[in-house]
Amino acid sequence: MDPAVATATLPELIDKHADLLARAQRATRTREYFSAFPESPSPRVYGEDAAAAGQSAFDALLGTELDLGQPTDGSWVGEEVSPYGIALGVRYPHASNDALLKAALRAVPSWQGATPVQRAAVATEILVRINARSFEMAHAVMHTSGQAFVMAFQAGGPHAQDRGLEAVAYALAEQERHAASVLWEKPQGKRPPLRMTKTFTPVSRGIALVIGCNTFPTWNSYPGMFASLVTGNAVIVKPHPRAVLPLALTVSIAREVLTESGFDPDVVVLAAERTDEPIAAELATDPRVGVIDFTGSTAFGEWLEDNARQALVYTEKAGVNAVIVESTDDYRGALANLAFTLSLYSGQMCTTTQNVYVPKTGVATDEGTKTPDDFVADLASALDTLLGQDDAKAAGILGAIVDDDVARRLEQAAAGPAAIPSRPIEVDAWPDARIRTPLVLRVDAGNRDAYAQECFGPISFVVETETRDDAVALLEDLTDEVGALTAGVYSTDEEFLDEVRTASLRAGVALSENLTGGVFVNQTTAFSDFHATGANRAANATYTDAHFVAGRFRVIEARRHAPPQ
Amino acid sequence: MDPAVATATLPELIDKHADLLARAQRATRTREYFSAFPESPSPRVYGEDAAAAGQSAFDALLGTELDLGQPTDGSWVGEEVSPYGIALGVRYPHASNDALLKAALRAVPSWQGATPVQRAAVATEILVRINARSFEMAHAVMHTSGQAFVMAFQAGGPHAQDRGLEAVAYALAEQERHAASVLWEKPQGKRPPLRMTKTFTPVSRGIALVIGCNTFPTWNSYPGMFASLVTGNAVIVKPHPRAVLPLALTVSIAREVLTESGFDPDVVVLAAERTDEPIAAELATDPRVGVIDFTGSTAFGEWLEDNARQALVYTEKAGVNAVIVESTDDYRGALANLAFTLSLYSGQMCTTTQNVYVPKTGVATDEGTKTPDDFVADLASALDTLLGQDDAKAAGILGAIVDDDVARRLEQAAAGPAAIPSRPIEVDAWPDARIRTPLVLRVDAGNRDAYAQECFGPISFVVETETRDDAVALLEDLTDEVGALTAGVYSTDEEFLDEVRTASLRAGVALSENLTGGVFVNQTTAFSDFHATGANRAANATYTDAHFVAGRFRVIEARRHAPPQ
Repeated sequence: MDPAVATATLPELIDKHADLLARAQRATRTREYFSAFPESPSPRVYGEDAAAAGQSAFDALLGTELDLGQPTDGSWVGEEVSPYGIALGVRYPHASNDALLKAALRAVPSWQGATPVQRAAVATEILVRINARSFEMAHAVMHTSGQAFVMAFQAGGPHAQDRGLEAVAYALAEQERHAASVLWEKPQGKRPPLRMTKTFTPVSRGIALVIGCNTFPTWNSYPGMFASLVTGNAVIVKPHPRAVLPLALTVSIAREVLTESGFDPDVVVLAAERTDEPIAAELATDPRVGVIDFTGSTAFGEWLEDNARQALVYTEKAGVNAVIVESTDDYRGALANLAFTLSLYSGQMCTTTQNVYVPKTGVATDEGTKTPDDFVADLASALDTLLGQDDAKAAGILGAIVDDDVARRLEQAAAGPAAIPSRPIEVDAWPDARIRTPLVLRVDAGNRDAYAQECFGPISFVVETETRDDAVALLEDLTDEVGALTAGVYSTDEEFLDEVRTASLRAGVALSENLTGGVFVNQTTAFSDFHATGANRAANATYTDAHFVAGRFRVIEARRHAPPQ
Repeated sequence: MDPAVATATLPELIDKHADLLARAQRATRTREYFSAFPESPSPRVYGEDAAAAGQSAFDALLGTELDLGQPTDGSWVGEEVSPYGIALGVRYPHASNDALLKAALRAVPSWQGATPVQRAAVATEILVRINARSFEMAHAVMHTSGQAFVMAFQAGGPHAQDRGLEAVAYALAEQERHAASVLWEKPQGKRPPLRMTKTFTPVSRGIALVIGCNTFPTWNSYPGMFASLVTGNAVIVKPHPRAVLPLALTVSIAREVLTESGFDPDVVVLAAERTDEPIAAELATDPRVGVIDFTGSTAFGEWLEDNARQALVYTEKAGVNAVIVESTDDYRGALANLAFTLSLYSGQMCTTTQNVYVPKTGVATDEGTKTPDDFVADLASALDTLLGQDDAKAAGILGAIVDDDVARRLEQAAAGPAAIPSRPIEVDAWPDARIRTPLVLRVDAGNRDAYAQECFGPISFVVETETRDDAVALLEDLTDEVGALTAGVYSTDEEFLDEVRTASLRAGVALSENLTGGVFVNQTTAFSDFHATGANRAANATYTDAHFVAGRFRVIEARRHAPPQ
């Protein structure tokens, strides 16, 4: 804890974060590059001792009971085992759903009674404190998601914090969009005007539920969590049972800042579950819950949409993401970019490309026309260049297989003929980690069953289409049918790019064109890129826009006559 | 048609309406008084000949086939009979749902391809043209809803047009909230920055369905219709079968402006139904429909929310509205205000007060303490002052009973003992109209079954509560249970007013305090008051805020590398 902040009062917090919030709000409008939290884990940025201190802090957590000071039935739960092989042994306080809901409900009125600016300042302070513990958080994210350390630092730390701040900025802007009060004067011809004073109070829906996922426990939870907080909701954070620690730390920091700012810390509580009592469905359908944010499987996401009818439900589910390779004037760049996308975190991102559409007529490149055979061979080389030279470096990109489901799926897919086989990587530091290079299968477009549903993990398909137009049709059709979070295209033909752009508008998926450098189709950046669109089945909302925040509160008006002038 | 506009091109329309739209957008933020369309039917405002011309235009419509130039199966439908007794005899083109959906779908791409500013200019022009035909529209609204002429002119004309413009303003602002494109530059230390060009395209959901109601065919339809239009959706307008004409005129004008502006007129089509083929449910659940706006019964509204799962569904349903009378320093003003509210359009507004809560301990007033007995007697006098002097004047406030359901409900309620009986009003001009003064029943708060559900029409209850706090609890409980669109309170005690304000925030209903003049609890004004809140069962959205417009489109991004500097 930063002692300079520990005694900060609410007005001081508002003052402290006013400029940052103004800049963040501006960035949401201009979509220019903006980041509040540096992504580099360099000692020059976070301090010479930060890395070691973060490691120590993480190590000190292992095998302990993490007391959050929140309602508890006295029992402790937690059985996290790192994809890198160590049992975390961290135990979390357990409470009944009803106890958590009652505590959250008690905390609502005072939080709701604060102004939007006050809530935004508190939320920003929470994010700043989380940022100060980014190394500790990186270890927590690494050892729950299986992400490699640098990725866990960036995606689980600053990038997630930026996504949180983005939600704060939108939620504040939305509540300040209308005047808080007005003197309304309606002319009445020669008679004196009608005069009314009116007040407009943003009122939250009450309790919000955030259901976290295993692979991005912070990045996918912060937008909903901070949007709900700043709009005056109390938030129950329900982590994935295998990725509790990152959100438990988040809740701990939030409760610390809430307490210091004079609020009931139960504005944010953790719902840690025993493995034998999945609680999400019961919490989600409780009449006291007014907002739900969910990241995870399409099946449970759609179940929530269909059954949690008392709540606003925001879901980020799954889809089939595709890239069309039609032509390129930078073949090596395209291959290297694709290889990195397929490899990063073993393809365990909802944004990873699954299908690569290649016309049978070949790909025109700066190195001549490439047949599908050539393309597969060249992609194999690009993967080998990226991952084949140094196992430690490869592991730093691939991370570890997150769970048995992915491992099993990979094993089954690898049993058939592979276009590019997956091979295990062994690193001394983590002998028990399952680290695998991506598996690429080759399939004819006609064999739709093979590639038309999500195969989450390091499994991709080179799909041969008769023509380039067939590739566009396939991208649009599958996005319609099963959803997609990302789409990409390589082409030097502006007319074809236009065609793909139009198809992506119709299908409702964001398009990355000719990525050959340090930007990847599976990555979006807060304040500039929207993550998901809400326009296809893969997600019913986006991080972050007005639609993502505006329903979390409603404006309640009161009006009365103003005294005559 | 204004010949000066008839040949206006799209850039001219944008220029013509830029200032109006800017002022409208400003008003949505400040909530200050603003109106684009004068509410006074005075010849000084609309011209010496406007009233007569409007009457002639309406008369000329009677008994005709209204050719909208839209898809049709060649048959004509229409069986409207005015609550004032005349059969309109207007016939509307009929088409299958599929034909309408196909036509609308064909019209989407070019409309979607226009810019938000272009669509807002076209929509504003449609409203300006509708405004020019406000007298004709007033007759159409009068003879479908049963509203008296002046109310039909105001609520069906300029007030509805203002609500439409408000939706245009919000929909435009929402689409302009983010830059349409950006050059994004991310610093990379000593290396050259990452540079990307990004475009952000608002893309509509495709086809929107507007389901109109019998009592406010235009006022309740325009917000959804214009919000959907400006966000790039084609709109299918499905009027109530007894209130087709006002929306048929609206569709006709919209198609005229669309054609002149170079768009496919099928961007707006009318879905007129035969009485034996209710089409709303089938249209609403068609996979091609992405947005639905509905005003009407709670039962069908909730059916839509539960069943039209492929669409965003905005519903304005019903509730039980209440006013607490605790104390007042202007007893006569309070009574007169209440009497007008109960009388206006025979209480056939979703915003009319149904329950008046009066503590048994009495009401402290500037004329002494009034027992519930006194209060009922004084309310009867106030109603008599308003309605008992001149039948023509009374009819001008009461309008006519809209349908047999209301007439039957009133008859049944009037069969028991009345606190203030309803009496028929006869006017020579409309011998067949059913015109009735409000019925007021008196009931103890304990007899909840009597007053705890909506009794749509001129039926109100004076509900005696043990204490004033019981009245507050009742208002909050019933709003929670069955919803409410409005709430009111009379009190001179600031502490009590605070209590009611807090209860209204919790219950999620707008509150009018101590209305004694020319503003009534059942009326909201565009650009300043929100109609409904979306925070209780009576409606899941409000006219109009960002939440009402932001989901009607999604932003689809495309990004690519920018050339190095």
